[in-house]
Parts: sequence; C-alpha cells; structure tokens
Amino acid sequence: MTQTLAIGNYTPDETQKLESEFAPLFLDDPTQIGTLDAALRDQIKAVAYKGHHPFGPDAMAQLPALGIIANYGVGYDAIDVAVATHNGIKITNTPDVLNDDVADLAVGMILMHGRQMAQASSWMRSGHWAGKGAFALNRKVSGSTAGILGLGRIGREIAVRLEAFKMDIHYWSRSEKDTLGYIYHDDPVALAGAVDYLVVALVGGAETQRMVSADVLSALGENGVLVNISRGSTVDEAALFTALETGTINGAALDVFDNEPQIDPRFYALDNVVLQPHQGSGTVETRAAMAALQRDNISAFLNGAPLVTPVN
Amino acid sequence: MTQTLAIGNYTPDETQKLESEFAPLFLDDPTQIGTLDAALRDQIKAVAYKGHHPFGPDAMAQLPALGIIANYGVGYDAIDVAVATHNGIKITNTPDVLNDDVADLAVGMILMHGRQMAQASSWMRSGHWAGKGAFALNRKVSGSTAGILGLGRIGREIAVRLEAFKMDIHYWSRSEKDTLGYIYHDDPVALAGAVDYLVVALVGGAETQRMVSADVLSALGENGVLVNISRGSTVDEAALFTALETGTINGAALDVFDNEPQIDPRFYALDNVVLQPHQGSGTVETRAAMAALQRDNISAFLNGAPLVTPVN
Repeated sequence: MTQTLAIGNYTPDETQKLESEFAPLFLDDPTQIGTLDAALRDQIKAVAYKGHHPFGPDAMAQLPALGIIANYGVGYDAIDVAVATHNGIKITNTPDVLNDDVADLAVGMILMHGRQMAQASSWMRSGHWAGKGAFALNRKVSGSTAGILGLGRIGREIAVRLEAFKMDIHYWSRSEKDTLGYIYHDDPVALAGAVDYLVVALVGGAETQRMVSADVLSALGENGVLVNISRGSTVDEAALFTALETGTINGAALDVFDNEPQIDPRFYALDNVVLQPHQGSGTVETRAAMAALQRDNISAFLNGAPLVTPVN
Repeated sequence: MTQTLAIGNYTPDETQKLESEFAPLFLDDPTQIGTLDAALRDQIKAVAYKGHHPFGPDAMAQLPALGIIANYGVGYDAIDVAVATHNGIKITNTPDVLNDDVADLAVGMILMHGRQMAQASSWMRSGHWAGKGAFALNRKVSGSTAGILGLGRIGREIAVRLEAFKMDIHYWSRSEKDTLGYIYHDDPVALAGAVDYLVVALVGGAETQRMVSADVLSALGENGVLVNISRGSTVDEAALFTALETGTINGAALDVFDNEPQIDPRFYALDNVVLQPHQGSGTVETRAAMAALQRDNISAFLNGAPLVTPVN
C-alpha cells in the first residue's frame, strides 16, 4: 500500500513523475482526505501538496502516520505550520529555484505598466496605428525610485534587476539588512512615501496580513504604483480599489489577488492596472525544478535522509 | 520673416515651445516644402525635422539658405547626410536622452514574450482564470544568452540591463569593443547562432539594410527570439515572416517595421510576436528632453554658437 498522498492540480508530466517514484494516491484538495478509507489514510506518511487551500489540524488529524508535508512552492502559508510542528510533522517548501522567475515577472509588470505595453499591443493588433497616428506617450521607468516591501531572497533579486534600470532602492524588512546602498525604512508607510514603485515581496500569513493598508497606499501617492508578486492577503484590496478608482495612486501591477482565481471583477474595468494570473513561477523550467525539489524532499524523508529544504 | 521651418507631427506642447522660441512655419512632411512661396523658402536657415519621410537633395535644393536640419530622434537615416554635408548643411540629432527608454522597452518586450504577459493579461481580462484553470506555463527569461547586434550607446544600455537578469552577453559590432566579459563575434550569423535573444540595436541606413537576413534567422534557430528596437530596414521582413510562420525561430518582439505605420497585417495573426508601435522613446519625459535638445541645436545655430549634438 502506498505511503504517499499527492494533493493538488498536478500537470501530466508532474503526475507521471510522482507515479513513477511513489505510486501515490491523488486528491484535488485537503478537504477530500476524509473520503479515503481509514486503512488507506493510516498508511500515509508523506503528502505532496500543491495548492492554496488551507491544510489545517483537521486534515492532519485524518492522517495519523503523517510525517511530512512537502509543499510545491516557496510560500507555505496555506499550511498550519504550528500545528504540524506540534504533531511532529515536517514541512518542506521549494525556495530559491523560483526567485529568478518571480523577479522577472515583477520587472516585466513594472515595464508593462509604465510603458503601457499591453495597451499598445492591443491597440496595434486592432489596426489603429495606421489610422489614428502615434500611440499616446507614457511614463519613463528607468531612474525611478523603487521600494521593496520584504527584502528576502525574492525581494533581493527584484532589487538587483531594478538597480540595472538606474533605480535607487529603498526597503522595509523586519530588521535592517546588510545591504550596500539600499535605504532602510522602519515602517511601510515611510517606505511608500519615499518611492515611485512599491514592490511587495513579503511572505504570506498572519503577520503580513493587509500590511499594504489604506495608509500605505495614501503615502504611495498619485505618482505611485503598487506591484504585488507575493500574496493577495498582504494588500487591503478594498482600499486598493478606492485608491485605483479615485486616482490617489497612479496604478498597480498585480500577479496575486484575494480569492484567486475568482478575483474581484472590478479589476477588469481598470486600465491603470497590469493583471497577471499568479504566474510568478510559471515557467516550464522552474516548475520542473520545483516539482523535482518536492519529490526530493519526500524521497529523503521516506529514506530517512536529511530533508533538502525543511521549513520547521 | 521667420528663419525656421518645423516639419513633422509635433505635439501641442512641442508646437507651443517651437512657436514661442522661433515662430516657425509648420509643414507635415518634406514633400510640402515646394508649396511655400519662394520668398519664404529663401529665408529658411533652420529646419526642425521630426519624422521618417526621406529628406533628400530635392528638399534641400528648395531651401537655398538652409544651414541646419535639427533632427528629432537619434536615428537620422531619413536625411541624406552626404548631400547635406556637400552643401554645407549641418545635421544634429538627439542622442543619449532616449537610451534608457529604448533599452527599457527592449527588456520589457523580452519579458512579455517569454512570460506571455500580453496573452496572460487578455486571458484574465476575459474572465478565463476562474473557469479554465491555470494559465499555460511559459519560458524562463533569466539565465538566457543575449546577443546585441550593434553595441552602440543603446546596445550597451540593453546589455547592462540584461546582465542583471544573469544573461551572458554576446555582440557583433563593426569592430571589437573594449568590454568586460562580453563575447565578440565577427559576423551576425555567428552571433545569432550563439544566443537565445538576438537584440537589434543597429543604426539605420544603407550599411545595415537587411543585415538580419534569412541566414541570420536560420542561425538563430527554433529557440531563438528576434528583438528589434532599431529600424525595420535592418531586418529582411519577408524572411522573418517565413521564420515565424514555419517555426524555424521561436518568436519575435518588434517595435519597428517596414512601412510604418502601415505595417504588414500578417503580423496580427502571429501569437509568437510581441508588437509595439515604434514607441521606444515614447515617454513624456524623454520626448520633452528630445524636443528641448532639438530646439537647443537650432538656437545654437541661429546664434552662431557651437552645436550641442552635431552629426556631420
């Protein structure tokens, strides 16, 4: 009987590799664990988890032999780590392999926003160039000031790229970091008030919930652009709508949202927002690396070897 | 009587500043010069030129007192410089002030292409995310290899930005440059064969005409992406269509085309191409700087002072 349960929406390639290595059971999300026979559940030592549904005490209690939840993704805010740790369940994630992709998408969204590139593309493809004259002038990006909210590994990758666009880098983090030339602010409102682009690269979870508040958005101001590649939970989305709809900030570039994928349709009516479907790590190359790291962690656990990227 | 003729499609702000400084005559393009009375034409010492229509011997002969053509833009391939020089007419352009914007657009187009950002944006705005599941995985950009065809001032700005995306930089130029760590190739085909992204940053004109040939595109290969922010004339567009339509290259990201703005509508049918409407320098900030530099050159000429940015 298998020791492994794979939960989530795996691609055909990922599914095949999981089957070949672990012959797991497959479920769509943690709420379905209870549908398995107790005899099956009692054997499960490892969960390969991919998704954003909460994975909490109830789900863990249904898997009495569980020893590891190997999360696919760097952000494991869907998993109740405190309860897992209390029950002796190890959590792993897939850090670092996705940093480049997420940083690339953040920079791409900033350029798309400033240079109105999605609008320019649609306008051309509608055949307007020949008939309507030149496309509207837009906004210079290089030489702006950037603020990184959360200077972790992904935040640093974003900062390094933006430096090449001649941007001064400001940041907020829980503590001041050893950085060469980056300017530290000890609260998010002060950071927002100092920059043109506020790039959210926080971890998710309770401690960063709605950190981008109405006050932060107000400080960002009418020339300011909010960029979010972290989690929708970090932003007060109601306050963001007010700011975008009344023009108290210049715009936003968002890869993450509340209630994904059922996002608020009010976003679609806004022309000053770049929208991406939570695809920060969504390349063939990086997703393959993430899936391999998830399997490596499960394999290490089942073989009694040290975990590759443990969280707790 | 005015000594200045402004030719081109100036914005209201540019028009007002030209009027306030020079009270010029205004025309749409050089073919209209002959419609002016000879008495007016005989007084014209300076032309402020904005556009891509040819400005050749006939136009110059109709302005016997002409001493300067101050071009709006860094590329002056529309102006017959040899004839101008022969007739003692100075040419100026607007270099450097636009380098950042053009480089920004090049990098933005590379990211949009690899990460399918325009498609992802349209797909979301059509409300597909909730109903159709995750957006298709796409292509990692960071860590690729970039080739700069023409390592002038704009090419270098592009290279510096792409270095921050962990790309190795290769280049072709008329001669090897003093660069730290960039790899020189002595012909464009060899360059194309060595890289993932071939970024064209050549000057326009006869010497670079169709330098991106069928052979170059063939060497670029099925993983290769052509990026052009220079002039449509540098690319064999017929060969490009063949390469794009048959998949012998991966795609293209184009800001410039043959026959702008009446570009070939076959481009609109291609999903593997990022299209932008020749907006490399199209920001409010940079166009204001270009217009100011154009006026400064005219003002210097009329006052007998040294030209700010002479070409010949």
